[in-house]
Amino acid sequence: MALSGLLRVGEVGLRIFDMDEARRHYGDRIGLIESYEGDDDKLYYKCPDEHDLYSLVLRKADEAGIDYVAFKTLEDADLENYEAALAEFGIEVTYVDAGVYPKSGRRLIFTLPTGHEMHIYAHKEQNGNGMPTRNPGTIPDEGYIRGMRTVRLDHVLLGGPNIETNREIFDKVFGFALSEQIVDHETETPLAIFLSASTKPHDIAFLIQPESNRFHHVSFLLESVNDLYHAADLIGKHEIAVDVAPNRHGVTRGATIYFFDPFGNRNEVFTGGYVHYPDTPTLTWDTTQIGRATFSHDNMPRESFLNVLT
Amino acid sequence: MALSGLLRVGEVGLRIFDMDEARRHYGDRIGLIESYEGDDDKLYYKCPDEHDLYSLVLRKADEAGIDYVAFKTLEDADLENYEAALAEFGIEVTYVDAGVYPKSGRRLIFTLPTGHEMHIYAHKEQNGNGMPTRNPGTIPDEGYIRGMRTVRLDHVLLGGPNIETNREIFDKVFGFALSEQIVDHETETPLAIFLSASTKPHDIAFLIQPESNRFHHVSFLLESVNDLYHAADLIGKHEIAVDVAPNRHGVTRGATIYFFDPFGNRNEVFTGGYVHYPDTPTLTWDTTQIGRATFSHDNMPRESFLNVLT
Amino acid sequence: MALSGLLRVGEVGLRIFDMDEARRHYGDRIGLIESYEGDDDKLYYKCPDEHDLYSLVLRKADEAGIDYVAFKTLEDADLENYEAALAEFGIEVTYVDAGVYPKSGRRLIFTLPTGHEMHIYAHKEQNGNGMPTRNPGTIPDEGYIRGMRTVRLDHVLLGGPNIETNREIFDKVFGFALSEQIVDHETETPLAIFLSASTKPHDIAFLIQPESNRFHHVSFLLESVNDLYHAADLIGKHEIAVDVAPNRHGVTRGATIYFFDPFGNRNEVFTGGYVHYPDTPTLTWDTTQIGRATFSHDNMPRESFLNVLT
Amino acid sequence: MALSGLLRVGEVGLRIFDMDEARRHYGDRIGLIESYEGDDDKLYYKCPDEHDLYSLVLRKADEAGIDYVAFKTLEDADLENYEAALAEFGIEVTYVDAGVYPKSGRRLIFTLPTGHEMHIYAHKEQNGNGMPTRNPGTIPDEGYIRGMRTVRLDHVLLGGPNIETNREIFDKVFGFALSEQIVDHETETPLAIFLSASTKPHDIAFLIQPESNRFHHVSFLLESVNDLYHAADLIGKHEIAVDVAPNRHGVTRGATIYFFDPFGNRNEVFTGGYVHYPDTPTLTWDTTQIGRATFSHDNMPRESFLNVLT
Repeated sequence: MALSGLLRVGEVGLRIFDMDEARRHYGDRIGLIESYEGDDDKLYYKCPDEHDLYSLVLRKADEAGIDYVAFKTLEDADLENYEAALAEFGIEVTYVDAGVYPKSGRRLIFTLPTGHEMHIYAHKEQNGNGMPTRNPGTIPDEGYIRGMRTVRLDHVLLGGPNIETNREIFDKVFGFALSEQIVDHETETPLAIFLSASTKPHDIAFLIQPESNRFHHVSFLLESVNDLYHAADLIGKHEIAVDVAPNRHGVTRGATIYFFDPFGNRNEVFTGGYVHYPDTPTLTWDTTQIGRATFSHDNMPRESFLNVLT
Repeated sequence: MALSGLLRVGEVGLRIFDMDEARRHYGDRIGLIESYEGDDDKLYYKCPDEHDLYSLVLRKADEAGIDYVAFKTLEDADLENYEAALAEFGIEVTYVDAGVYPKSGRRLIFTLPTGHEMHIYAHKEQNGNGMPTRNPGTIPDEGYIRGMRTVRLDHVLLGGPNIETNREIFDKVFGFALSEQIVDHETETPLAIFLSASTKPHDIAFLIQPESNRFHHVSFLLESVNDLYHAADLIGKHEIAVDVAPNRHGVTRGATIYFFDPFGNRNEVFTGGYVHYPDTPTLTWDTTQIGRATFSHDNMPRESFLNVLT
Repeated sequence: MALSGLLRVGEVGLRIFDMDEARRHYGDRIGLIESYEGDDDKLYYKCPDEHDLYSLVLRKADEAGIDYVAFKTLEDADLENYEAALAEFGIEVTYVDAGVYPKSGRRLIFTLPTGHEMHIYAHKEQNGNGMPTRNPGTIPDEGYIRGMRTVRLDHVLLGGPNIETNREIFDKVFGFALSEQIVDHETETPLAIFLSASTKPHDIAFLIQPESNRFHHVSFLLESVNDLYHAADLIGKHEIAVDVAPNRHGVTRGATIYFFDPFGNRNEVFTGGYVHYPDTPTLTWDTTQIGRATFSHDNMPRESFLNVLT
Repeated sequence: MALSGLLRVGEVGLRIFDMDEARRHYGDRIGLIESYEGDDDKLYYKCPDEHDLYSLVLRKADEAGIDYVAFKTLEDADLENYEAALAEFGIEVTYVDAGVYPKSGRRLIFTLPTGHEMHIYAHKEQNGNGMPTRNPGTIPDEGYIRGMRTVRLDHVLLGGPNIETNREIFDKVFGFALSEQIVDHETETPLAIFLSASTKPHDIAFLIQPESNRFHHVSFLLESVNDLYHAADLIGKHEIAVDVAPNRHGVTRGATIYFFDPFGNRNEVFTGGYVHYPDTPTLTWDTTQIGRATFSHDNMPRESFLNVLT
């Protein structure tokens, strides 16, 4: 069936404090496109090369963090199948009608063992990627791509307990591959797991944390290391709080920058990384190599990277 | 189910005349790794970042061209399912035992309506990508990556009649998406179709041709435009016959170079291109834009590109 | 003494037919900055990373071509020295007062043996590169760099007879190094000479042509091969007439694209090339390698490239 | 006279402890070419795209640090001129005969006010850059460029007292431009000065330090940000001690990595940076922006960077 079922992280819901600062950070700085106007306390963004109407929803709240992660699935009928399969893990689901999330089809909603709210939906209005579908050409008009020149929202890393149960659910219910894992070198207990729905080295990852429903970062794909440097130049120019300046992950082999939005939510821009298939062997890193697994240019683990979540 | 069934072009069989010249071209120049020693008249190659033992098989023969294209599928049990589904198209299959193709599982073999021999197999011995699976690091030892610094064998473009029937088979039997097509602007008849098994803009493509079983090119993925320029530098240095110097395709948005092996088989190195999902709209180019669809830097159709096949 | 005397091509005067089309091409497409408003029939442009007020002057006229090439020299007193040295070659000069060329110091003007009008001046008003000189930062505000993302006006290639006399003058009077030359392989007669004032592989070059005062191209520096591909994407999008799509020169090793303005004047964007010092050996290409000398990715000489001048 | 007098840092003499470790670091890892065999306690290296026989001399000693920095000048007769001009600063010189430094012309040797031994010489044997001077092509044979793919030795940063006197000498005697400086924001006292002999943003720089004759780093030019990332991948792979992972300097705008050889000498690989001319305004950074001046991606001053010298 080639690619079916859950396709990708289609939407992330984050909490922010201030609408103007959020617009400046996600719109002007990162260059996301504000693509829908809904409730007064929400901002809807997408990356330039996405076809769906929006992929990032920012909600005004009192504290930062994640509201939910929503996966797009290929067929609406998948929802009932997932409901049944989740029941075997004792997970109860609710359905939300089409249109409750604007321009979106109905959603299946449930809570992961790590405490995160997860959505599944099959439909969302599409407004294109700045180019027509007939004789599209290769590059949109000047100004459509701006700021950090992101391509797509790519993945999220979430923290919580019970990550092994999450892994089982993503394996058995959703068919995700375990592309990589970081394990304790003495006990072989997984501390972080990286799960792939397609050919990306990961679509979602979980980091073990005592507290549930923690948010580590949302990541935006860039086209090249040159664009990564361009993003870093903007980050420095605008004095955006940097967590880790340009480096390369051991896990995924992606080139990366971590920084924070004005509310403390961690963002990543990245590029590269290998092509992962379900028959690619799972790569395992142990804690003797935690520096290299995370930041392979200097093999230096960052305390903040491992422990600061919202 | 995420990614299942046919995963990718796992192997291409091409015909060459001279073993030494083939080794110089595919080994020394392109930098593929000769990874298996089998029959005296065959050469087995892989790209550096592939895990399976080989992906390109060159067979000494009297004329250039393609022997077969082989897809890897996720499960061995898929073969019987495909057999049944192909029967509905009146396509007969044969099975070849494991080991006939060295270090490979059993294969389902049949002929596409375009006249091409197609294989499906689920298993092939893996010898890794030059890095261990425990604490792999991010870069193999010096010398492992050489020549044009290819990453993976990516796709093939084949020519023949009945490409619309091929499209139907790849849709109904294998679940491939039609990512793009080039159509006659008056009749809307498809002249070329681009089919995706995963998130690549294409895994296989077919170009309408009066003669069946024609080979247009096999394509190798590179990591960056810088590496594309490096490949072009090598091509010029070694006076490899160039079909089209660096350019960008309209279709797929990939940056590309076309060149020929010493026997007339067309090779491509490319990088970039967008991420395609099953819910991405199909892009259609018509023949008023054939130049831009093929080579979007100068919008100039190349006669040789459209008509020279082996 | 380091760098003294003629520093670089500080200004090129070209002829165009239509002000609006010129603005669209040089301003919107290439992304040059219109930095001064003078006579009604002139447009003044600069590249984003130049400090001087303008470097390209377009004059409305009946036919395309070059009006003059102007070099900036370090000291105003240099002018009299050059006058004396040029007299030994029988070249008469005139002086033009400061301000005749707007915001420019006085100029020494004379005609080269190839028929080109050449200016020398030491002063021009500076308006900076979009960043302050105190704590400048590394990247200007969004929108300052646009279009093809040029860095600087880099060099010109001019055609005419007597290029060897030009070479002698640039050597003896101005101290330029002969970085490279293309010679007839039978007679060793130079057909093209490349002259460097500093550490660039060339600041000005001359191509032998029967007619005098011919213009081959003006070239703008880009930062990377990625930006070169971005420029080519824009060229294709806007259907700018391409002479040669992305390639690499043998001479200078620069990565290049040639295209035409709406009036037939050839433009180049390029990146890379080696660092040249006066003690670097002169490189000589002969006509057996004219393809590689000009376009080393396919070693294919382009008729139009060698013979179309304005 | 275009470029004359001191051309560039032609040679740096460093001290190392162990010949094998030095060979592994500078030869295998960085990819410098061991190009001459001299005394048993010395190693002679060059970068692949340099024409002169060697540019880095490593001498076995008991402690790390710099022996001398040697500038190449255009003409042998320059030496007497410099002798005279240095005398006005009360600096005494000695001459060393041709051949004492192998394959090198005679040298003028003296001590800078910062305590560094400086050489000037006009001649050194050339063995080319891996390509002929007749029809050179654009890329040397496979294996010639290896390791971190350096292009040239570019500049040094040295520490000591009296940097303002050094500045005066480089200005008055050698005609270097002050491209940038970092000053104390209260006193405007220069803490670091960056001096350019040609069109590079610096050829040599001095950092104020209480102790004289201190060595901060020697820097090797790379071709692209992609190659910088490749270098960082090798640095991580081989666990070379990193000082600062990929970042961008505010000063010079160069993309940079700092790391240490096994003896504690700091090395840099870098790429990019702007084109500097003598008429480019001097850029001044003050200590309120010391973070951005040094590392502009995160504007974070590094204690070790400012204070660890050998």
